[in-house]
Amino acid sequence: MKNTLFVKAGKVAIQEIDKPTIQADDDVIIHVVRTCVCGSDLWSYRGFEDKDANSQNNGHEAIGIVEEVGSAITTFVPGDFVIAPFTHGCGHCPACLAGFDGDCQDHTDNFSRGNQAEFIRFQHAEWALVKIPGKPADYSDSMLNSLLSLADVMATGYHAARVANVKRGDSVVVVGDGAVGLCGVIAAKMRGAKQIIAMSRHEDRQKLAIEFGATDIIAERGDEGIAKVMELTNNAGADAVLECVGTELSNETAMKSARPGAIVGRVGLPHEPKMDMTQSFGMNVAVAGGPASVTTYDKQLLLKAVLDGDIHPGKVFTKEFTLDQIDDAYQAMTNREAIKSLVVIA
Amino acid sequence: MKNTLFVKAGKVAIQEIDKPTIQADDDVIIHVVRTCVCGSDLWSYRGFEDKDANSQNNGHEAIGIVEEVGSAITTFVPGDFVIAPFTHGCGHCPACLAGFDGDCQDHTDNFSRGNQAEFIRFQHAEWALVKIPGKPADYSDSMLNSLLSLADVMATGYHAARVANVKRGDSVVVVGDGAVGLCGVIAAKMRGAKQIIAMSRHEDRQKLAIEFGATDIIAERGDEGIAKVMELTNNAGADAVLECVGTELSNETAMKSARPGAIVGRVGLPHEPKMDMTQSFGMNVAVAGGPASVTTYDKQLLLKAVLDGDIHPGKVFTKEFTLDQIDDAYQAMTNREAIKSLVVIA
Repeated sequence: MKNTLFVKAGKVAIQEIDKPTIQADDDVIIHVVRTCVCGSDLWSYRGFEDKDANSQNNGHEAIGIVEEVGSAITTFVPGDFVIAPFTHGCGHCPACLAGFDGDCQDHTDNFSRGNQAEFIRFQHAEWALVKIPGKPADYSDSMLNSLLSLADVMATGYHAARVANVKRGDSVVVVGDGAVGLCGVIAAKMRGAKQIIAMSRHEDRQKLAIEFGATDIIAERGDEGIAKVMELTNNAGADAVLECVGTELSNETAMKSARPGAIVGRVGLPHEPKMDMTQSFGMNVAVAGGPASVTTYDKQLLLKAVLDGDIHPGKVFTKEFTLDQIDDAYQAMTNREAIKSLVVIA
Repeated sequence: MKNTLFVKAGKVAIQEIDKPTIQADDDVIIHVVRTCVCGSDLWSYRGFEDKDANSQNNGHEAIGIVEEVGSAITTFVPGDFVIAPFTHGCGHCPACLAGFDGDCQDHTDNFSRGNQAEFIRFQHAEWALVKIPGKPADYSDSMLNSLLSLADVMATGYHAARVANVKRGDSVVVVGDGAVGLCGVIAAKMRGAKQIIAMSRHEDRQKLAIEFGATDIIAERGDEGIAKVMELTNNAGADAVLECVGTELSNETAMKSARPGAIVGRVGLPHEPKMDMTQSFGMNVAVAGGPASVTTYDKQLLLKAVLDGDIHPGKVFTKEFTLDQIDDAYQAMTNREAIKSLVVIA
């Protein structure tokens, strides 16, 4: 089968490898229908993160058809259409029960990788995998894209809004206009935010943010951006802030955009380990967040919202590729020609 | 009148100065009945924080009798018995309305100082000051001490528990066995915590923690302490953690003691500006907290709980001094002979 190989920084390529096989009782083998490239996949591609040459590539998002199930799987049968979340919660440990299956305490292999391939092995599938009614042929392309967003970005944007405790009537700032930030706008709207301020410098993303529910756009960064937030919130600061980038600057902007007592929900993978937490203490600004609870949100409300046509997160996919074009898919995102690159396989 | 002068690190002394006067329409002059020494007052006393020699001392806790009121004050008259919170919220800005009057957005002089004196000027008193029914003579010494704790430590302990979202049935870890940590134990119990694990190495404080509601004591620190927390919580981590110290080690212990998705409510004044926030991201552990909402909590529930005899936070005062003995009061806390030093004035 075709699989994506990380050749070196700036180069991924398709290689032929053996199809994955069931290795544990709770494994499921999935025939991938659609996959995609994540902003976090670009870290090693851009050379910001060390990664061995000619190694298994990242990539952790997919929808597909169940091909084979392990002996312990009771919830899926071959032929089922599924979302493969990037997280693999057990559903019954204290973390999963609290709705934080991104930190399942039952096992250590909680994250997907190598999903830019024709087939994938999905571990701990019994609870973590999410069933989609019907078959791929029952859905439009745009609906399939929205379903694919439920493997990560839409759930991650929702996580930011949930841990930031976005409530009805809130003013919300979203820092970051990548796919996750844009999904954060959708999530803030779903949770009833009245004012949604998207910080975005790119016209295509500004446009999508507004389509998704943003009420205001701030193009400025740093102190100028913060000043604009204060202006738009009557100098109060936002009731909730979604941090969807992960840099020191974006975190500082997020914390300084918040009203005293507000929560910054951060889902941008942190670029620097240490953060200045003095001002957040002085201002009683809380910092929450981490890996999303993908299965929880998909099952609770996101799958229904997508299938009902209430939300259209698949619009973050602005360019389409085949698996053979995987390097072009990476390049498109690296060069900001695509908000998020879609890879159609089956 | 007698006032406490910061002579130099390791030395405070009484000086005679003029009584404070009304300087703004919303000022109140208070004749102090009882004041005390805070752990944070010790920072400059111990030389951990630069402070000018022969300058106005810190000290921000008091109960007393209203002596004189500014022209804008409608809520108090001379003779009223009051708690003087260390915070001075306006009661109507977005931060105060959200219950974060420790970060009032109406003015910048939001904190008390110089309260180890016979008289104090309490600014922005209209909403911030808290009335106690009756007169000092109506109360026992132990009740007066509990009322004094409502100027800071009991409210600060409660703040940790509130921002950590301690709920009925929770397992809670309290890091720090100073007066604030011990009041955090009281607060966790008030909010219905089922398991309250106090991290304490001192026998007198362990005893008081248990009297206040702690179900378990951990004397170990760092990784050993964290391992004990895991043991006591069936390897889940605590549902909420109260960080009542402010050092890098105490914050690390707090974050690593938390279950994924739990909140660390930190009220220990941070000793270092930067914190390692990578693991908290990986574990979805939130960090909240800052200056307490003293007036809010006193008016909402703490004053009633003290007057009803439901809680006895005044027990944190384990040694009593006169104002002339102020340096002894500091020494007793510095040498850990007192959990918290009480200063009886009128």
